Parts: sequence; structure tokens; C-alpha cells
Amino acid sequence: MGNSLIRLNSEIFCAASAVGKQEYEGPLGALFDLHCEDDRFGMDTWEKAESEMQRQCFGVAMKKSGLGEEEIGALFAGDLINQCTGSAYGLLDYDIPYFGLYGACSTSIEGLMLSSVMTTTGTFEHCASVTSSHNCSAERQFRTPLEYGAQRAPTSQWTVTGAGAFITRQAVQGSGKAKITQALPGISVEKGVTDMTNMGAAMAPAALHTLLRYFKESGTKPDDFDLIVTGDLGFEGNSILRDLLAIEGYETDERLTDCGMLIYDKEGQDMHSGGSGCGCCAVVLASYLLPKVESGEIKNMLIMGTGALMSPDSVKLGLAIPGIAHLLRIESERK
Amino acid sequence: MGNSLIRLNSEIFCAASAVGKQEYEGPLGALFDLHCEDDRFGMDTWEKAESEMQRQCFGVAMKKSGLGEEEIGALFAGDLINQCTGSAYGLLDYDIPYFGLYGACSTSIEGLMLSSVMTTTGTFEHCASVTSSHNCSAERQFRTPLEYGAQRAPTSQWTVTGAGAFITRQAVQGSGKAKITQALPGISVEKGVTDMTNMGAAMAPAALHTLLRYFKESGTKPDDFDLIVTGDLGFEGNSILRDLLAIEGYETDERLTDCGMLIYDKEGQDMHSGGSGCGCCAVVLASYLLPKVESGEIKNMLIMGTGALMSPDSVKLGLAIPGIAHLLRIESERK
Repeated sequence: MGNSLIRLNSEIFCAASAVGKQEYEGPLGALFDLHCEDDRFGMDTWEKAESEMQRQCFGVAMKKSGLGEEEIGALFAGDLINQCTGSAYGLLDYDIPYFGLYGACSTSIEGLMLSSVMTTTGTFEHCASVTSSHNCSAERQFRTPLEYGAQRAPTSQWTVTGAGAFITRQAVQGSGKAKITQALPGISVEKGVTDMTNMGAAMAPAALHTLLRYFKESGTKPDDFDLIVTGDLGFEGNSILRDLLAIEGYETDERLTDCGMLIYDKEGQDMHSGGSGCGCCAVVLASYLLPKVESGEIKNMLIMGTGALMSPDSVKLGLAIPGIAHLLRIESERK
Repeated sequence: MGNSLIRLNSEIFCAASAVGKQEYEGPLGALFDLHCEDDRFGMDTWEKAESEMQRQCFGVAMKKSGLGEEEIGALFAGDLINQCTGSAYGLLDYDIPYFGLYGACSTSIEGLMLSSVMTTTGTFEHCASVTSSHNCSAERQFRTPLEYGAQRAPTSQWTVTGAGAFITRQAVQGSGKAKITQALPGISVEKGVTDMTNMGAAMAPAALHTLLRYFKESGTKPDDFDLIVTGDLGFEGNSILRDLLAIEGYETDERLTDCGMLIYDKEGQDMHSGGSGCGCCAVVLASYLLPKVESGEIKNMLIMGTGALMSPDSVKLGLAIPGIAHLLRIESERK
């Protein structure tokens, strides 16, 4: 494969997050901008609740930015619901050019990457990206409705109820905002995993693939970063990625972590292998990681949106689950 | 809304198309690169057939280009199947960074637009976009399986079995290739249409919205173009768009046409309101329109990918169908 490393010069001007009850009760609860105690966001179906969560979340980001809709050149958005209706309906109120994306749980970083390319190149002055997942809409579509009370496998993850929104612009030195300096879009990788209850195993090889490409193309190694964080490999996928990296000669420590490991209390909440979903990476980045980058506590990090590109039907057809991982390098101004 | 007109300087270096039986038997049949008499492309399910059609189609485009996979910086792809598995599985063989898109039937132009922005800005030297739809996989997912023999409404369209692939690069004067000179991404528009068998009516207001924005932002009018072609409004949607434009003071003639009107023989094949689907716009552009631009028969055209951003579930929830239309201006070197 060729060199696909993109050099960027953009910054995350504003970010916002909205979550459900379980996420609010987790260790990052106090950091989220919005939460809803019953996960319904005032709606009568889970699908409408997911859309409303996106709408409210993007509204907060817009309010923080002080920008008018006419100042946002494009909005990149997606979710996990069939035909991405979570985003299509959630963002319908906004008169902003709309690019629909589908990258499964990698969509949050896919959107932020495209938004960042668009502003770096001056194609638009400001761009936005929004993604979401909702536990109740996702579980009934991908696995079984929650009401069935199906037993969960130890490797299974908990789809995060959450939406994250980001507004990017060209980097302004001295703004204090987190700078997006490099991007490496992922290549789909399929290693024969067919277990719908072990997404971490399906996605870990894709995360490995992107990381190895990145280290090679950028001339860096794991120790060059304060943090290497994946979107939603969970405890199982993180452990697999760690093993795979060791085979390639890269030893990693607790600085290789995952948004799905950070969002819930492992002991107190028992979400098995951790969080997952488009919203997982988005809300952890927006509310927990970005402030640390802005303060200088994190100086230099890699974040990878990880996605499993199957559908319930493709699994029934006996097809293995392809994974993908899109990478961004995010740096602090405070070195 | 603000000014979102993007000035581009790219060209369609190569294009390819693959279709099924009905499309091959239509008036453009001889122009397509590949066709399959039984629509199965050697596979045992319609979903796998759609993926295989994408795989073969992109293979033809790559072969025409003479490029290696490592020379393509990114691949933008999407389809209509839940979780876009048509593309995810169809393009898995290619070691190329992958951006999954979902813009319903507008995805072909959404992908070509992003591909064109990426090459215009020098982010990548070459980019590719691939989209598909398959009549049998789409009908059973969105409406009813074909085996049920459901009666079709007069306004209904026939989902095209087809895949189109495009490879873009920065414009090279004298290459003879079709130049993409401007883009206007669409804004979602919802005007209360809830009829799943009348997609043309749901999408026509979005096409109007994008066209009016384009005329205003570019300072042009319909007469400035040899052709203004929409992706899949069909006869019904085209007629509505014509009426809506007349209300706005723009008289249009047969130069306002639609890929869904061009692909089948209106009398002989009786596809009711014409063709639709991601593949419709893609294969008509790749095989019929682009050669005319290259030869100079078409000097200056607008093409709009039109999409209906609903799902079967959103319709059941009683939600109206939002439409979107992404516009590209394509010009010939031979003036």
C-alpha cells in the first residue's frame, strides 16, 4: 500500500457531548454537557430519542461556537441505525450542507477527519461532525430487543447511549485549542472473526493495521505519545491489540487505552468488555480527552475510531466481520 | 444559509460501470463495461451479488487507469443495503484507505465530490469512488421481496441493478478528460412526503433547493448549461421539479433530464416512473454522459445526485421522507 498519511493544520474549535443514564453514572459523568435520566430525550421511540440526542448535542456545540448555521460549510454525520436515520432526522433542523457517512463505530473519527481536511485545505472555514449511538436502538437492531433479556457473552460490549459533536477550523496559534496535525484513514481488514458478541476481536486487527502503517509512514513509535486511544475495542479488543503489537515488536503499557474502557466503572457497572458504538469514542474525546489536550496534560496523542463493518444480515450469510480504524494525531499547544 | 460553493480543479481520469439484465436490455445497454444476464454475478444471494458487482466494476476502473492500489489515496463508497455492506464486502479485496458513505441514492455524487475535493486540494494524487444498488437486494429490504409479486404504484421506480466507479485526479489540461469545476453539497429538505412508492416527490424539493442555491451562488441560470441532469427523480420527480422551477421563474426544457428517465426504454420496458438507486446515476454518468463530455457533445453540465434519507422503519414511525441533492458542474475541454 502507498503513503496515505495526511498532514493537517486544523483545530477542534468546539465540542459537545450528550449521554444517557448509564454513561452519566460512570466515572466521566460530570464531564458531559447533557444527559437524560431515562435515555428517551422526550421522545416516544428509541430511534427518535437518538435523533433528538444528536439534535440537542449539536445545538450545544453551535451555541458554544457562537457561529451561525451559515458559517458552517459542511456537516459530516452518521450513526449505526439502518440508513443512518439517527443523523438524517436528528440534523434535519439545521440548514447546513450534509454529508452522510457510514463507518460503523469509526464514524466519529471518519467525520472529524473529513471535517479537518476540509478546513485545513480552506475548502470551508468551519466544518462540523456529529455521531451517535443509542443502546436501545442499536441492541434491538443488531442483536435482540432489550425486553428479551438475552444473556450477554463475557466478551460483549455495552453500546453507549451518547452523541458527540465537533466543530473544526484552521489552526490558530495561541487559541489554546487542540490541534489535529495528522490523519491516516483506515483500510478494511477481515481476519475471519464471525462472533457478533466479540466486536473487539473483529476490530483489533484493523487497529493494528492502521497503527503499523502510521508508525512506518510517520517514523514514530508508541513511546512518542502520551496516549494511544482506540474508540471501542473494549477490554477484550485492547488486550488482543496489545498482544498483536507485542508480536510486531512494540511493547505497550497503560498509555494504550480505549474509550470503551474509560466510559464505565469496570467494577461498579459491570459492562462486561466495556463500551462500544459511534457515541463511545465521540463523547469520551469531546468531554474527557480534549480538555486534557487543551490543558497540556496530554501533549501528543493518537486516537483511532474503530468500526466493525458488518450487518446482522451479513453475519447470517456466514460472512466474517471486517474491521476498520481511522487515525488522527492530536497535539496540545502547551508543550 | 451561507456560501458553500466549492471551486474544483479535478478531472475524472477513469470510469467504469456494471449492470444487470434489465439495464443491459435498455437503450444504453451497449455502453456499459460489464453486465450479468441473471443479475447474480456468480453469487448465491442478492447481497453477495451486489458486492461482487462492485468488486468487478472497480476492478475494471483500476485496469483502465493502469494504476496500482497503492497509488489511490482513498476510496469513497456506499450503497443502500443496511450498514452499507454492499461496499464494505465488495471492496474488501482492495488495500486502499476506505471512507464509507451513506447518502441514499445521492451517494454516487457525494463520493465523486469528496474524491474531487481530495484531489483538487492535493490531499491525495488519485482518489476513487464506487457506488451500487441491486434491484433484488433493495426491493426486499425497502419494500417487499420480489417473490411476493406486489403490485407497483404508477409513481414507483425500478431500483437499478448497477455499480459505477470513478477515479479522479487534478485536472490536466489537454488530457481530454471531463473536468469537475464546481461542487455544491446539498442540504436536507423535508416537505411532508410520506409515500414510499413516490421517491421522486420526496426528492424533487431537495433538487430544487440545491439548484436555486447553485444559480444564486454561481450567478448562472438553466440556459447556461447543455444539460441539467438529476440522479433518480424519474418521470414523476422530473415533472415536479420542472413545475417547482417554473414557480421560481425558471423555464426549463428537455435539457432538464434525469438518469432514471434515460436508463430504461419508457415504452418497451415499462418501469413506471423510471430507474432509481445509487447505481442509476453512477452508471448513466460513467457510460453515457462522460463520453459525451469528453467528445464535446456536452460542453457544460450540472449533475445532481438525489437521495431520499428515510428507512423502512422511519416510514413506519410516521416520519416524512427527507431528500438531499449534491451537485457537480462538469465541463468539457472541447468548447
